[in-house]
Amino acid sequence: MSQDAPTYPMTPIGVVRSPYRDTAEIPKGPGAEHRAEGTLDLRPELEEGLRDIEGFSHLFVLWVFDRSSGFELVSTVPLDEETPHGVFATRSPRRPNPIGLSVVELLGRAGPRLHVRGVDMLDGTPILDIKPYLSGVAAETLRRGWIAEAEARRRSRG
Amino acid sequence: MSQDAPTYPMTPIGVVRSPYRDTAEIPKGPGAEHRAEGTLDLRPELEEGLRDIEGFSHLFVLWVFDRSSGFELVSTVPLDEETPHGVFATRSPRRPNPIGLSVVELLGRAGPRLHVRGVDMLDGTPILDIKPYLSGVAAETLRRGWIAEAEARRRSRG
Repeated sequence: MSQDAPTYPMTPIGVVRSPYRDTAEIPKGPGAEHRAEGTLDLRPELEEGLRDIEGFSHLFVLWVFDRSSGFELVSTVPLDEETPHGVFATRSPRRPNPIGLSVVELLGRAGPRLHVRGVDMLDGTPILDIKPYLSGVAAETLRRGWIAEAEARRRSRG
Repeated sequence: MSQDAPTYPMTPIGVVRSPYRDTAEIPKGPGAEHRAEGTLDLRPELEEGLRDIEGFSHLFVLWVFDRSSGFELVSTVPLDEETPHGVFATRSPRRPNPIGLSVVELLGRAGPRLHVRGVDMLDGTPILDIKPYLSGVAAETLRRGWIAEAEARRRSRG
């Protein structure tokens, strides 16, 4: 990218505690389910920012792929090892800005710590933001591109 | 936040073109609908990263609240002007890391430019990342916290 582009510095608001110490342990690819429980530990001075969060069943978590470096514009991913796809059409960690996005289920809160289900981050992952998850796109209007195709190919092979 | 926290620099991958020049023009609060069309203009050297994105009906867009500064841990927002809520339980722009998250409908692509519906960003907003939107949380399991309560209060007043 060109040298004159502005840069926005982001400082973590906390850290993910998860059962995963290595990316190989995280379920990936076809049929991967994220049911692991973990915590989102906010910096104590930010605790007030969680007021009323208990009312939400699901949260968006924005975080940093801090153990990934560099990016590839096109690559293969576990969901489809045959065909390379553009990075913005995948959840590859090797992105121009290494930001991850997860939807987790909020199980409870203790002060600045949120207990959640559905973590797919490594233990120690820096958190950039938490937002309420408000609504989804209706299933009947959603198209899932190459992912639906890769799934269909696998199914047809039995 | 403490001085010793690591900082992650993020460099925009492109810019949003939208009909909104001022935040006052963006629909907000109860019943706000985001049907505005706009474009996501990627830096030309990143175009390959969009390969196969046409197959997805909806995208996540991560972007910078570049015309907002500072943050408030607790504040009132247009959806509920009576009760202040924690910043992580709202979509307030005044966040510790000023990252916005939108779901847009992909209408078409021309090279590094994506034509989308549902923009709620200002014209010129820097884009940090684009990801495929894959699935939602089933409506029957979703709880929307203070937002559902604020809506119910408004309805009961007629």
